Amino acid sequence: MDYSAQLDAAIARLHDEGRYRTFIDIERKRGQFPHATWRKEDGTETPVTVWCGNDYLGMGQHPAVLTAMHEAVDATGAGSGGTRNISGTTVYHKRLEAELADLHEKEAALLFTSAYIANDATLSTLPKLFPGLIIYSDALNHASMIEGVRRNGGAKRIFRHNDLDHLRALMAADDPAAPKLIAFESVYSMDGDFGPIAQICDLADEFGALTYIDEVHAVGMYGPKGAGVAARDGLMGRIDIINGTLAKAYGVMGGYIAASAKMCDAIRSYAPGFIFTTSLPPAVAAGAAASVAHLKADDSLRVRHQTQAKILKLRLKGLGMPIIDHGSHIVPLIVGDPVHTKKLSDMLLSEFGIYVQPINFPTVPRGTERLRFTPSPVHGPREMDALVGALDSLWSHCALNRAELAG
Amino acid sequence: MDYSAQLDAAIARLHDEGRYRTFIDIERKRGQFPHATWRKEDGTETPVTVWCGNDYLGMGQHPAVLTAMHEAVDATGAGSGGTRNISGTTVYHKRLEAELADLHEKEAALLFTSAYIANDATLSTLPKLFPGLIIYSDALNHASMIEGVRRNGGAKRIFRHNDLDHLRALMAADDPAAPKLIAFESVYSMDGDFGPIAQICDLADEFGALTYIDEVHAVGMYGPKGAGVAARDGLMGRIDIINGTLAKAYGVMGGYIAASAKMCDAIRSYAPGFIFTTSLPPAVAAGAAASVAHLKADDSLRVRHQTQAKILKLRLKGLGMPIIDHGSHIVPLIVGDPVHTKKLSDMLLSEFGIYVQPINFPTVPRGTERLRFTPSPVHGPREMDALVGALDSLWSHCALNRAELAG
Repeated sequence: MDYSAQLDAAIARLHDEGRYRTFIDIERKRGQFPHATWRKEDGTETPVTVWCGNDYLGMGQHPAVLTAMHEAVDATGAGSGGTRNISGTTVYHKRLEAELADLHEKEAALLFTSAYIANDATLSTLPKLFPGLIIYSDALNHASMIEGVRRNGGAKRIFRHNDLDHLRALMAADDPAAPKLIAFESVYSMDGDFGPIAQICDLADEFGALTYIDEVHAVGMYGPKGAGVAARDGLMGRIDIINGTLAKAYGVMGGYIAASAKMCDAIRSYAPGFIFTTSLPPAVAAGAAASVAHLKADDSLRVRHQTQAKILKLRLKGLGMPIIDHGSHIVPLIVGDPVHTKKLSDMLLSEFGIYVQPINFPTVPRGTERLRFTPSPVHGPREMDALVGALDSLWSHCALNRAELAG
Repeated sequence: MDYSAQLDAAIARLHDEGRYRTFIDIERKRGQFPHATWRKEDGTETPVTVWCGNDYLGMGQHPAVLTAMHEAVDATGAGSGGTRNISGTTVYHKRLEAELADLHEKEAALLFTSAYIANDATLSTLPKLFPGLIIYSDALNHASMIEGVRRNGGAKRIFRHNDLDHLRALMAADDPAAPKLIAFESVYSMDGDFGPIAQICDLADEFGALTYIDEVHAVGMYGPKGAGVAARDGLMGRIDIINGTLAKAYGVMGGYIAASAKMCDAIRSYAPGFIFTTSLPPAVAAGAAASVAHLKADDSLRVRHQTQAKILKLRLKGLGMPIIDHGSHIVPLIVGDPVHTKKLSDMLLSEFGIYVQPINFPTVPRGTERLRFTPSPVHGPREMDALVGALDSLWSHCALNRAELAG
């Protein structure tokens, strides 16, 4: 068995399909984000503006967050030193869980090391708690939800993205007595479209299903306190399990679910991905709690965030750029070809100091390869002018289509 | 479908079996570890000594680690702001990966958010790279390895713990042309026994298999630079993939694999658990890198660690306590009954201020329920006197057996 040749073949497949990923080495400077330094392979450095980060509100450099982290490091040290069960539960973890339960108006919240593992661990554990559970999963759900739904070989039905008729048909075809769960997202990060939360909750009521929503691209950014889209729409009480992240709008790291006390207790007790892993460092929990608390009380970053997204979309539309606009904060610009997308990204970086990663298959369907911009309250008019000007010039240079794809 | 009643039943099963976990809320004070504060449910506080943490060397409060974390927070902020591919690769991550590759004398290393997900993601991705791969997995492998081996329904063979004859028989029974991998640990954390690394590598050579070793309870603690047991025994070059953690002896958080450049490149490119999750905060990477670098250069904590473990084992043996001693740093004291184990743990905590979590099924087999002590360089003679005295008194009080189980 020639393992080395097999590895070569696996890597060659990616190159052949134009989807081999090259990581760009970025160093952010506190207080200057979205400005950062690009460290090239040859060791030289160039200033860049980050236009593809998920630190949507710039909380990753907010003084309240950094102060909380410094204080926790000083008070308690670096790591937690154990799993949650074996010496790794601290006042910092408990405080953050209380903050999150309050945010989502649920009885409890449960911290994980990431929202990825919160999805994977929770969705793969629910069939143990509800034997015979059928999970109805939106076709465009995030990889972590797909992994969780798949993991233990439980029953699953994939409904076409946001297609309520399809979801209804699938549910109607199953045993009415079987336990059921609908898993979906509030904001789908690649197109920036919203899930039909109210209608999905109606179907859940009709068929006696639990509801599971991934709000990772919404928490901190939507709703009066930043609890997400379900909160904005007054639907949070109809969702059984809310999944969120502390690594995007909250600017730190970690993930969680918020749910009833007994749901959290059961997941806590049965999910290997929760039980058998070291808990988050206290400083990370402290920073995240400070971020959640800040964004609960202060709406101004959320308002500016939405304004910046609206301006960018308007300006790109004005130039006939084929962006997708579903009214969210995410601005996808469709290029439609992996090689062109990569080339545009490379030229933006090398010629204009603008860093936006190409998004190719399998993250998005083939033919919809794109650049995806994440405007934020810290991207000012100067940064936006530079981006819009660069895109305008490259679009002409590359003779790419305008207008007909704009929507 | 009464979901609430199902949750009640799931939780009741744990209570019935005496294995419902109650998390103890601990607040460590920097510089005073293993001393900490126990925050009770009623809000009152009591000082405790932590005897069950995995911060084996006290690096979680080492000035080199904390300084590196502070500096990174000041320089760059809180979170990384993205996945490794989308703006989340920083000089801190690259530096840490270079440090780890050097530690293990491999071409490359790949960071994950935890060693749990490093195991799960790597072991579940290898069958994609080597179609038809058969994984031979030690029966006592950690939950994260079990999850990874199980995940995609690939071929697996479970060999009896450390049983080379069984492993050989299983391998001999399979198609000689099939790709194979042997997955095992260097130190098994519940008994503290070692895996037969050299003999497993011999079998791997004989049957043309890859080798995968989990060194999470060894990195930082064994080998001249802290690279683990394989390094100590001069066998590191015979291992294809080494898994390690930054959350135990290194005192921070995160996990990794170290392997050939093309192996790391392929896992990096194909593992959803690596690709689709926010990278570690730069401050966490910086703290971990400082810890790895410190323990590479300085052997003294490792030496004191082993000495402390030897002293504790000798003293407990002298009292006829039924400990397991395989010559590692882990000190399991067998109680053999879940209710007694929980009661001993509760009494140690409430009467003596000694915090050691009970270890019950399914973490260990029924009938071998235990207390597991983790002595460290920061547990001095005073702390050890207190522990040994408390155990002696409780053992008599509870009329538990001495001597006959001691080995």
